[in-house]
Amino acid sequence: MIDTLIQKIIETENPTVVGLDPRFNFIPKHIRDIMLETYGNTPEAVAKSYLAFNKAIIDEVYDIIPAVKPQVAMYEQLGAVGMASYIETIAYAKEKGLVVVGDIKRSDIASTAASYSDGHIGRVNVEGSIHEIYKEDFITLSPYLGYDSIEPYMDNCEKYDKGLFILVKTSNPNSGEVQDILVTKEGIALYEYMGSLVKKWGDAFMGTRGYSRIGAVVGATHKEQGIKLRSIMPKTFFLVPGYGAQGATAEDLNGCFNAVGLGAIVNSSRGIIAAYQKPIYQKDFSEMDFAKASRQAVLDMKHVLNRVR
Amino acid sequence: MIDTLIQKIIETENPTVVGLDPRFNFIPKHIRDIMLETYGNTPEAVAKSYLAFNKAIIDEVYDIIPAVKPQVAMYEQLGAVGMASYIETIAYAKEKGLVVVGDIKRSDIASTAASYSDGHIGRVNVEGSIHEIYKEDFITLSPYLGYDSIEPYMDNCEKYDKGLFILVKTSNPNSGEVQDILVTKEGIALYEYMGSLVKKWGDAFMGTRGYSRIGAVVGATHKEQGIKLRSIMPKTFFLVPGYGAQGATAEDLNGCFNAVGLGAIVNSSRGIIAAYQKPIYQKDFSEMDFAKASRQAVLDMKHVLNRVR
Repeated sequence: MIDTLIQKIIETENPTVVGLDPRFNFIPKHIRDIMLETYGNTPEAVAKSYLAFNKAIIDEVYDIIPAVKPQVAMYEQLGAVGMASYIETIAYAKEKGLVVVGDIKRSDIASTAASYSDGHIGRVNVEGSIHEIYKEDFITLSPYLGYDSIEPYMDNCEKYDKGLFILVKTSNPNSGEVQDILVTKEGIALYEYMGSLVKKWGDAFMGTRGYSRIGAVVGATHKEQGIKLRSIMPKTFFLVPGYGAQGATAEDLNGCFNAVGLGAIVNSSRGIIAAYQKPIYQKDFSEMDFAKASRQAVLDMKHVLNRVR
Repeated sequence: MIDTLIQKIIETENPTVVGLDPRFNFIPKHIRDIMLETYGNTPEAVAKSYLAFNKAIIDEVYDIIPAVKPQVAMYEQLGAVGMASYIETIAYAKEKGLVVVGDIKRSDIASTAASYSDGHIGRVNVEGSIHEIYKEDFITLSPYLGYDSIEPYMDNCEKYDKGLFILVKTSNPNSGEVQDILVTKEGIALYEYMGSLVKKWGDAFMGTRGYSRIGAVVGATHKEQGIKLRSIMPKTFFLVPGYGAQGATAEDLNGCFNAVGLGAIVNSSRGIIAAYQKPIYQKDFSEMDFAKASRQAVLDMKHVLNRVR
């Protein structure tokens, strides 16, 4: 799947991943009204709104991006109806040929991790009947529990051509509280140590285009750190969050790409899916045309990324 | 809620938490058969089996334990029908007066963490209509992203009397790969550093019985490490996994308790919920009596724990 992702980045000339992290106040009034009328003031109304919203945006951008990244928290919050909407969002994105990165950041071991693995990127076998549940192509994972929390995913990665992005350096203001502490091993920071672990784990699972199935989440808000990690893990694909909303600029991304402009995908969520709410797009797009505003925001982001990568 | 948990440990004279981590091969044949016949070989049949299984066990043990800990992965694996079964399991346990620790180990920041927080331990507001979705009393969290991944939960903890257990030292064989690396700050291990962070975060959120709302997950497989962490974080309640199945013995738990035998709850999952499959219980309990075998396993565990704490 890492090979497919790279192929799609080359075809679309775009390393932008659209983060499908809806919130109810991003949803245009005409969708909200229909759903509230149909389902009442319920979590189901919100879940159905998210699905309709996502589908409309996917319809407008699927031909100009390689991938989408739904954030499961937004759906999980709504209970079972939310998870159904998460699953339907993924199915729809895949129908349109998009690579799907499930942003689940799970963090568990042994049979528990195997359960997540089978559900998200593998198969669930019920008395010989085989079920594919979530169907993400990639998922994100949190590494505090060590390789025991990664290994249960590798069988499914190999068997079903899937991939992982492991948190290495995140984009939040307090990330340094844990990730920047110096570890005595050669006096490097914890995130660098984690980068070297992720590289080691990934070396055994290389794709055919020079990158591993095991990628890394590397926040865009720390430029020098991106450069350092790129040198520690040259064969690791980066998923870069924090662009736009979290304050990172295109220049900060520079070190994440390699000499031919590959090696990273950059996520933007609110900046694209709620573009119609930004003054810069409001003059050209009405609320009814929210998805067209998202398309324009993707084209604008592509343009900027292609200047720096 | 930490006060309630302590009260229930004192009342039941039992620090045992029953881990509701069902697997389809734990489910007695008479339950499996009914569900497969009703729902076919589907994830729904598995989800409904889990719920029936959990309810039967809860009915037999609710009067002798303080809390249960459902592991969300087992349910999440099954998709939306699984999440419904997770939610119904929690509701049933709470009806029976049990404290519920949702083992979710989520690991995210900002609006994403706030979404998890509102869904799991807070409220979801849909146009003025207020919904409680998962209703856990405590949840577990993974700390690699620093306080940004904890802070979004604290408002709901205060407002709705909830609590957290943060991963500090886990029970898996490879946990040392990350958690034991030495950090230069005074040459301590990362898990000790994390322990001091969790202590610091928790100091602002004390209950009335001398323990913080922010607890720690401390694996039972490393005795000296439990002792060290108890001294670093004397006011932090420990959730101790790894007892039984993961090889820890009662003696290993010793350091986790304080002088009056409080300060920790100890989880056992398979050892209790699948007790009827163990030779030691098979002579007294048939498969039909699986829940009674679980009750006996709880009483046996209580007996052993009360000898060491």
